[in-house]
Amino acid sequence: MDKVSGEGKRVSRVFSWRHLLLLSLTLNLGLLTWFVYDRGVHSGQKPQQQFCFDNKINTMCVASEQKVHVSSSSSSNSGFGAADGGNKVINLDHGDPTMYEEYWRRVGEKSTIVIRGWESMSYFSDVENLCWFLEPELAKQIIRLHGLVGNAVTHDRHIVVGTGSNQLFQAVLYALSSSPPPPHPPHHHPISVVSAIPYYSSYPLVTDYMKSGLYKWDGDAYAFTKDDPYIELVTSPNNPDGFIRQTVVNRSGGTVVYDLVYYWPQYTPITSLADHDLMLFTVSKSTGHAGTRIGWALVKDKEVARKMTEFIVLNTIGVSKDSQLRAAKILQVVSDSSEHMDYSEESESFFFYAYHQMTERWERLRDAIRCSGLFSVPEFLPQSCNFIGGFTEPHPAFAWLKCEGNIADCESFLREHKIITRSGKHFGVEAKYIRISMLDRDEIFNLFMERLSNISL
Amino acid sequence: MDKVSGEGKRVSRVFSWRHLLLLSLTLNLGLLTWFVYDRGVHSGQKPQQQFCFDNKINTMCVASEQKVHVSSSSSSNSGFGAADGGNKVINLDHGDPTMYEEYWRRVGEKSTIVIRGWESMSYFSDVENLCWFLEPELAKQIIRLHGLVGNAVTHDRHIVVGTGSNQLFQAVLYALSSSPPPPHPPHHHPISVVSAIPYYSSYPLVTDYMKSGLYKWDGDAYAFTKDDPYIELVTSPNNPDGFIRQTVVNRSGGTVVYDLVYYWPQYTPITSLADHDLMLFTVSKSTGHAGTRIGWALVKDKEVARKMTEFIVLNTIGVSKDSQLRAAKILQVVSDSSEHMDYSEESESFFFYAYHQMTERWERLRDAIRCSGLFSVPEFLPQSCNFIGGFTEPHPAFAWLKCEGNIADCESFLREHKIITRSGKHFGVEAKYIRISMLDRDEIFNLFMERLSNISL
Repeated sequence: MDKVSGEGKRVSRVFSWRHLLLLSLTLNLGLLTWFVYDRGVHSGQKPQQQFCFDNKINTMCVASEQKVHVSSSSSSNSGFGAADGGNKVINLDHGDPTMYEEYWRRVGEKSTIVIRGWESMSYFSDVENLCWFLEPELAKQIIRLHGLVGNAVTHDRHIVVGTGSNQLFQAVLYALSSSPPPPHPPHHHPISVVSAIPYYSSYPLVTDYMKSGLYKWDGDAYAFTKDDPYIELVTSPNNPDGFIRQTVVNRSGGTVVYDLVYYWPQYTPITSLADHDLMLFTVSKSTGHAGTRIGWALVKDKEVARKMTEFIVLNTIGVSKDSQLRAAKILQVVSDSSEHMDYSEESESFFFYAYHQMTERWERLRDAIRCSGLFSVPEFLPQSCNFIGGFTEPHPAFAWLKCEGNIADCESFLREHKIITRSGKHFGVEAKYIRISMLDRDEIFNLFMERLSNISL
Repeated sequence: MDKVSGEGKRVSRVFSWRHLLLLSLTLNLGLLTWFVYDRGVHSGQKPQQQFCFDNKINTMCVASEQKVHVSSSSSSNSGFGAADGGNKVINLDHGDPTMYEEYWRRVGEKSTIVIRGWESMSYFSDVENLCWFLEPELAKQIIRLHGLVGNAVTHDRHIVVGTGSNQLFQAVLYALSSSPPPPHPPHHHPISVVSAIPYYSSYPLVTDYMKSGLYKWDGDAYAFTKDDPYIELVTSPNNPDGFIRQTVVNRSGGTVVYDLVYYWPQYTPITSLADHDLMLFTVSKSTGHAGTRIGWALVKDKEVARKMTEFIVLNTIGVSKDSQLRAAKILQVVSDSSEHMDYSEESESFFFYAYHQMTERWERLRDAIRCSGLFSVPEFLPQSCNFIGGFTEPHPAFAWLKCEGNIADCESFLREHKIITRSGKHFGVEAKYIRISMLDRDEIFNLFMERLSNISL
């Protein structure tokens, strides 16, 4: 407890009163969750009812309904069914990170980029670099940000930039499955690509859409029993469920790719510097700039980095310079905001802002779920976060919701309520699960909370 | 002759005296080439020596050497071998279109884009559009530009944006080879992809690098004799040789993809509106913004456009918004410059500027080739250009150079002179041919001319 309070004091120094209030709520929530966890409510299970005191539930549900009124205050109908949002389809299928727009609006002009007509016209960015289309300024800001956040080792790594981490994922598969030059023996083809369930729904689609002879999707890593070479994808925190993950197969002849696009302080405690041979990141999830389509890989092996670069040349002849320059600027502002934190709103640390947004949203989601009694979401263990300071709880970018009771097809059930989600079957599990984006704009999230709270059988 | 003079008068109205001088040179050169052609010097053949009067050759070579002095005037050594550029490697392997930087510098701030931190953050651009990641402003400027230049029909077409035309090429292959939904019979796989020699060197590499089961490279279209479905790539004007092309296979069961990335007034006379089912374009070659990685496809069939969009989603989850907005601005400035032409340098029409640059470069190249006597380049027939007005001669983005005499490996021969080019063998033909970029910066082009003029056996 001393440690938590001590860290709390250190953090409070850089906050406005609003942040203090949120921090207090967070610590309380964190400790409560810890308490719950400590008493045997394990990850993925619904919290036992004895912790949902009736009075508290009622208070929460009233609070939730009050929020409804706030969000629909501009409507002439204040009741739920008749509110403006009542017929609106809420699409939370994609993880479109528009929640972050608000922060960037507040930051204002210092995150603006200006590109003149004659700038960045060439295909080339740095002919001396193995990844010759990587803008040096982006590389510099990537290294700086990882150093500040402490989430990944960049020393002795090659940076390969991609059109989003999705392209880099394919570049990795290509690099690992293309046969090495003689005298090495050729690879056994196609190489199996596996990931533990529930896995990111795009993995099977993106692995197989080209019907490549180099690699093929082989499903759940837990079920992989072949004795052949394989590639294991470890998404940590995991999409869709938010849990920190380790490798599953652990056999010789395998290569592990770490998809760390959610390993940032707003989503999960930063407990250590990730130090793997192949790590993927993206601005889409770290700063919210999905439309910019910039991802990066930290790659230990030079030959793998060279083959990944080759893939990106064959696939798209490099990566948009405009977007790289924009990403560099955004990462610079994020690092500046963490380095020079002060009390003014527009200089607020990006990660603290995002962390508090996610904390609040998860609190509201758990309230709404408690009210309806039809769903459950995973419970997480708070851990000490090296960046935020003190114990923090994971607040994943997606809610991995389970329909309880007799609802077998959770996606269809919510679709009846005009909430579009992604069914568990795309993630290799039962249709009782669904994935829901937690990163939409406030207006949409409020509407979602309103509707979820009021769902009954 | 009357037509040519008449068109010449119309064009001169919008030109400064510098342009008039260039125009006059161009018309003379065009008529001379026509004259040569009319007397039996056919495409791809070296002009017969009787048209290279000794005096003229000498005058040209002197002129070429004078240019050398100009380009190396800042050097303390004015002789060729000792000039600053003597040891510099000139890399003309890629078609990096940096020649255009000068125009955009002159245009100044009106081609600048400003993107604020909170703009274009979402994955989505237009959820109503089949291609939901296409920025509406880019679509608008693409339609406007084609309308002004008169090089392609946009009516009743779907626009699919890509990360350069290279990604769109793969999107087309995917769309045409993915099996249609039932009750249609599945495709025969892999579908053959062919193109007539000399074909763009990237086609075989990009078709085969994924070892896709959907399609495979099947080489020269002239040699294609199978009775199976096929996809024929028609690049017109052709990369590498600059000629206007038609389909070659002409059998049922085939689909033709028109790669029209060089069908712009600076490279070739715009003789008609291209009106094909599948046409590819890119800003890299039209305006010189290669680093922006924006291409577009004009697609007649809705299902093909839908499958192309699906490919781009699976491949890169859409296309950089920043680059799309930049491309929209650049195309807008190009269209403005063609619509409101006046006498001031900074308002000069982009295509007239580029056309004159290319005319001058090709004139200098032909001079240099005449001086060395070791090489030949294709000869072209002038045609009436609907955009420039009057008869114009093609000035391709690449010179398709042939080493004459006993030089069997032209690429190696020029490499000895520190000129890096791309060997004909990558284009499906003999190593006597090489492809040379004509789009590098003035400084590099001058150095190239200097070195080429002075090569001897």
